[in-house]
Formats: sequence, structure tokens, C-alpha cells
Amino acid sequence: MIRFYNGKLMSMDCGTHISSDEVWVDGGKIAYVGPPKEYDGQFEREIDLNGNLVMPGFKNAHTHSPMTFLRSYADDVPLDKWLFEKIFPMEAKLDANCVYEFTKLAILEYLTSGITASFDMYYEPEAYAQANIEMGFRTVLCGAVNDFKESVPRLEAYYNKFNNYHPLISYKLGFHAEYTTNLENLKAIAELSQSLKAGVYTHNSETRSEVEGCIERYGKTPTELFDSIGMFEYGGGGFHNVYMTKKDLEIFRDKNVYAVTNPGSNSKLASGIAPIDKMIEMGINVAIGTDGPASNNALDMFREMYLVTVLQKLANNDAAACPAEEVLEMAAFTGAKAMGLDDCDCIAVGKQADLIVIDLNRPNMQPINNITKNIVYSGSKENVKMTMIAGKILYENGEFFVGEKANDIYARVNALTEEIKNRK
Amino acid sequence: MIRFYNGKLMSMDCGTHISSDEVWVDGGKIAYVGPPKEYDGQFEREIDLNGNLVMPGFKNAHTHSPMTFLRSYADDVPLDKWLFEKIFPMEAKLDANCVYEFTKLAILEYLTSGITASFDMYYEPEAYAQANIEMGFRTVLCGAVNDFKESVPRLEAYYNKFNNYHPLISYKLGFHAEYTTNLENLKAIAELSQSLKAGVYTHNSETRSEVEGCIERYGKTPTELFDSIGMFEYGGGGFHNVYMTKKDLEIFRDKNVYAVTNPGSNSKLASGIAPIDKMIEMGINVAIGTDGPASNNALDMFREMYLVTVLQKLANNDAAACPAEEVLEMAAFTGAKAMGLDDCDCIAVGKQADLIVIDLNRPNMQPINNITKNIVYSGSKENVKMTMIAGKILYENGEFFVGEKANDIYARVNALTEEIKNRK
Repeated sequence: MIRFYNGKLMSMDCGTHISSDEVWVDGGKIAYVGPPKEYDGQFEREIDLNGNLVMPGFKNAHTHSPMTFLRSYADDVPLDKWLFEKIFPMEAKLDANCVYEFTKLAILEYLTSGITASFDMYYEPEAYAQANIEMGFRTVLCGAVNDFKESVPRLEAYYNKFNNYHPLISYKLGFHAEYTTNLENLKAIAELSQSLKAGVYTHNSETRSEVEGCIERYGKTPTELFDSIGMFEYGGGGFHNVYMTKKDLEIFRDKNVYAVTNPGSNSKLASGIAPIDKMIEMGINVAIGTDGPASNNALDMFREMYLVTVLQKLANNDAAACPAEEVLEMAAFTGAKAMGLDDCDCIAVGKQADLIVIDLNRPNMQPINNITKNIVYSGSKENVKMTMIAGKILYENGEFFVGEKANDIYARVNALTEEIKNRK
Repeated sequence: MIRFYNGKLMSMDCGTHISSDEVWVDGGKIAYVGPPKEYDGQFEREIDLNGNLVMPGFKNAHTHSPMTFLRSYADDVPLDKWLFEKIFPMEAKLDANCVYEFTKLAILEYLTSGITASFDMYYEPEAYAQANIEMGFRTVLCGAVNDFKESVPRLEAYYNKFNNYHPLISYKLGFHAEYTTNLENLKAIAELSQSLKAGVYTHNSETRSEVEGCIERYGKTPTELFDSIGMFEYGGGGFHNVYMTKKDLEIFRDKNVYAVTNPGSNSKLASGIAPIDKMIEMGINVAIGTDGPASNNALDMFREMYLVTVLQKLANNDAAACPAEEVLEMAAFTGAKAMGLDDCDCIAVGKQADLIVIDLNRPNMQPINNITKNIVYSGSKENVKMTMIAGKILYENGEFFVGEKANDIYARVNALTEEIKNRK
């Protein structure tokens, strides 16, 4: 039993309310939340929070972790050149070992940012899952079917395999995007979704040209197309959702499709600003993802939270748009829901102990006028004092506890990145 | 003599080039830059950089440090309500002691973000200067004349006083803004500027309504008005510069007026996006500031650098806009020039030892594909391993060396903030 005491708690079981409750963790789960009380056993560790805040970890609801090797590899170039001349040729050279090593680097970065779970679309799922399991990180794999890689039968096999694989691993149906997946495949995925009664996730309306292309091909927006073939009968989610019509938004709302927003990536690639304020107003559930490190380039939920709100303020010419409380809930609570991690959404007895300690004793968190606003508008990775997943402390006071040294991972990633650059 | 060795150096004497040179610091200044060599004395300290990067500190070229007490006090409200109902009434209650204490908190935050000097517009300059001197922080005070506070004769007195005050302190002529300063005062400031042969700094074209109001009053934009009365004969600078006409930009270029951009504040207050890419193209010198903590809310140069570039990408629909190299130079090099700190712009023999160590051994800086891109697109305060000002280490490995404990400053700021809320 680990005890957190003498601090503040934002349990998120009812918004961003803060109490002075203690939190006890046992066997990977939350064992007690409430005022101090007697314990007749021996605590494994008693953590004096010294006034700091315990809250649920952030959920990175859209990413491509193995792309860490492309961080800072192709910045400040036009989108087409970035993708076709820089990113795709390098990605084509990856093998399972690369995916394993580059994922490990991403996980280190997630931990520094208080991220306790990722929703990850990539290939080589066994190698990817292995990296997560070894380091103790929680992840939801997302299917990545398209016309060039993977297939619908394999999607079903993965779904069955990785949903019965390891407590830290789960799997959601998914495909890359409309523009990389033909109608026959899309229909087969929709059918699979209905037979499994499982939601489907995909890149959706990220760029204007993507939407225009889809309208040209089908006379429908991507969202309309997916809906028309029964893709969203069991919900699911869209990543990006920058160019959304009113009808698209109504489909998301009516079919309970999660909108995962990626403001860092959408800004850096000049894609645009998603209509988050409109989504909130319509009651659409919004989660936040960093997208991959080739397009962001950081895997930092603090930056994403800040961007979510200030880009809405800019786009709507309204300093009151998209308040901090909404954004913090997206990052910690709704992200869990979007990923099917219903037992990681808040801090309550029986839930998974996926939590973070926010250091309030830093200049950027002072004075304590409003902790939620402090986190969203001033917070940074310097404020992540601890990251705990399934009751295990994986990061504390800048140090990693993931089974090996961070410097060893850096060395292997650098060597492998250089090697790939020279691979034919 | 302090020796930095076994690392990388971005001296910024010629852009963002990186070498493996050593840096030696003596008596507050850079004593040697070059390959390892013999030293016949005893080093006070030899710092093994372990591959990390030494570079000039960031310069925060526009801020209002004492406003830390209003961080997270009035977020997510419309601009008018924010300013007139929330900020102004609270500011009116400040005294010199408040300015002193709240500035100390800001300085702590600057140090965590690798900021080695601030350009600060506020009142109670003696109390403000005292806080900086006590903590060892470098600052340039900016005049804040307007029709309600301060005056032109006092501006001249301050100019003479604070330019002969302390090695860490200097002073620039300045006024609050066109909309708070009548033409008579503006003309008197322009005259003073010419008699002192000194540039003038002011808030400029921050919001659309400010520009429209000026055109209504004078038939000119603020920049045109200032230029027409001889305000910029000795250069100076504008803060914000969001709504700039082609003619405004030409005036900035022709009169060597620095454009200090504040993207965090402009975003959060929904003011707009300054035309930085256009400025670069025209050869205007651009520096970066956080603005005050009431409107940002963080004092974080990493966030500002990222925003400078990604907002240009968004506004111009061009992922190649405003490359990282330009942005890093704005933050570290051009900021110094804008503030008149010509001896703090780069790391070269005889320059002030105002430098930072960037920790590259963190996940967000890996792999090492491109260090400049890493800093601008992935960097965060977690990467500031050391901040040195005038040869003194004020921040290292998360700890402050500023003459007193950070926790004592937090406690006083919190108590004082609560007291002010209750002041009549």
C-alpha cells in the first residue's frame, strides 16, 4: 500500500474540483480516497505531497510513438515535401526492432509530461507492445489498415490478439484514412465493427485537400462517407477533425464519435484550427493527442492543452473561448473514455492507479490563485513530479524507473537513426 | 575562472552554428572560447557538460514582471472585462513592496526558462530594480509614461538615474501606448528622445480597436503617428505589432525600430497574429517577449519560440514559414540588441557571461537530428540545466541560488496576493 498525504487531490470524478483527500494505492489500483484514517497494515511507502497536487494522468489520445526517430529531421519544409520526400522514405526502412527502440524513447517522453497512456497508430504491433510492457506503460493500439499495409482480416486477428494479451495493452479497430483506404476495405472494416460491436478510429478531415479529394471521389465528406457505410454504429473516433461541416459535427454528436484534437501538429504542418469550441457547444466529446513526433515535434500534453484553448480564442476572436476547466478534463478524463480506458478516467476506489503528482512549488504555479488555470496556462513538464501507472512509479523527480537507463535508450536510438539514414 | 568543457557550443556570433569549443568565464565575462588548452591558474569550477549545449541566455524583450500576482486570476473572460473589471482595479492597489516581491517571483520563473535578462515596463522602478539587484538578475527598465501615471520630466530623471545605477540595470525611454498618452506628452517624449539621442519603446498596434481608435483621432496608424512626430529618429521598439500596415512595416524597417512579438499573450487575449514572416522578409529586427503573467500566463521562452513559428505557419498556410533558426536568434541574439544589451548577445571573449546550459540528455531532445530544431520545436523548461548571469550561476539542476529560498518568496507572494484581494 502506497499512501499520498498532505497534499491536494483533483480526482476528476466530478470535474476539476479540488479536495485535501488522501489517496492510497494497492495492487495497481486505487484502494482509498478520503480524509486521513488509521491503517492497520504497514505502508510500503508514505509520500508527503508537501501541498502538491495528485490528479489522474494525461491520456495521449492520438500519436505515432515510433516516429521519434524523425524528430527534427524535416522541419520548416512544405507539407507535401515533408511527407513524400522526407517522412515516407524513412518510414519505409523501419523494421520491428526500430519500432521497439523508438517507442521506448517516446515512452520516456510521455512520462516526463505526465502522460499515463497512449493511443497509438503504427505497424509492427508485437514489437510496439513489447516496448510498452517492458517499461510498464499503458497503451491502446489502434488499427492502421490501408491499401498498402495491413488488411482487414489481420485487423480482426490483431483485435482478438491484443485485447487478450496483457493488462497494459488493449486494441481498437482503426484504419489510416479515407484517402489511403479504398471503399471495399472501408466497407469491410464497417462490417467488422458491427460484428464485433466495436468502434472504429481514423484520421479524419485533417487537411482541406483531404476533404476536397473525398468529395470529388464520393460526393461526401469523409465523415459523411464513413457514416453512410455504417462505420460509426458503435462509435469510435476521428483524429484531427480540422475541416468539419455542421453535418459532420452532427454525425459525431449523434453517433458518439470522439473528436481527438491535435493542435500542435495541425499548427506546425499549417493544417488549420479544429472547431473545438463548436464541438463543446454541441456536446461532442473531445480528447487531446500530440500526434507523432515527426509533426509536433514534442510529446507534451501541457503544450497541447495550452494550444487547444488559445487557438480557439484566436480563431473565435474571443478571450473567453474554451475555458481551462474543459481543456483539463479533455486531457485527463475524456481521453481515457475515448480510448476505452474507463477504469483510468478518474481517481476513485477500484480504478487503475494511473496518476501524476503536479509540483505546485515551482515559480510558474505561484501564486495559487487557481490551480486548474495554473496547469493549463502556465504548466509545463517541470511540474511533473511523479508519474505512476498501474500503481508503479515510473518517473519521479526527473528520474526514470523503467527497467533500464534512459541514456542507454538514447544511445541506441541515435545509433539506429544514423544507421537508417544510411540504409538503402 | 569557471570552465565549461566536454560539450557543444552555440556561440551565436554567426547564427546557430554549433562547435565543440570550451567556454571559460572570469569576473562576470567570457574569458576564452576555443579548443581545450592549458591554464596556468586554478579553476574555481570545472563543469563537465557531458555533451550538453552552452548558448547565450534568452532575452525576454517585453514583460511586466510584477504582474505575477495576477496569474490565473482572470482567465477565460472577454478582453474588456479582463482589463477593466479584473486587472486594473487590482493593479491600482499595488505599492512598492508588492512590486518588489512579485518581481522576485517572476525572476525565479525567468531563470527556469533560461531567460537571462528582461525588458520590463512597470512602475515603482526603485523597488523593481532592488529585487533584480538582490537576486543578481539583469534587467532593462522601460519608461511607462501615460496621462495618468508618470510624466515626461520624471522619464528623463529615471533615464539618467537608472543608466548610472548598477551594472545589472539599464533604462530605455518608453511610454505606455498611444491610446493612454495624449499628443502633447507624445511630442515631449519625442523631443526628449532627440535630445538624449535615445530610442523610444511602446505598446504598438496590439489590437484592431487600438489602431482604429488612433486612425479616428489622428487619421494615422499609431506607427505613422509616432513617426510623424519624430519619435523614432533614434530607433526604439514596438511591443506586439499585431495590426501593421505595409507603411507601418516600412517605418519599422527604415527607422530601425525593433518589433518585439508576444505570441502567447496575443493568442490568449485573442488579439491576433503579428506578421512576423513579413517582417523577416523585409529585414525588420524581431525580438520575443512573454508579456506579463496576467495575460500569458507563463514566462516561458520555449513556449513563445514555438508559438512564433507555428502561428506564422498557420497564418500563412505554409509549413515552411518562419524557420527555427530565425526564431532561436530572435530569442537569444536579437532580443539583446533590442534591449541595448550589446554585450550580452553572443558568447565571445569580453562579452557578459549571460549563458545557459541546455540539457540534451532528455527524451524530448533525442535523437540529435538537429539541435536548433530540437530546441525550438521540442524544447521546454526541463531542458534548462543551468542559467548564469554576469558569470554567476543563479539556477542549476532545478535549484535557485538567488540569496534566499524560493519557498520563502512563494509564501510572501501568496500572503501578499490574498492581502491585496482584501484591500479596499
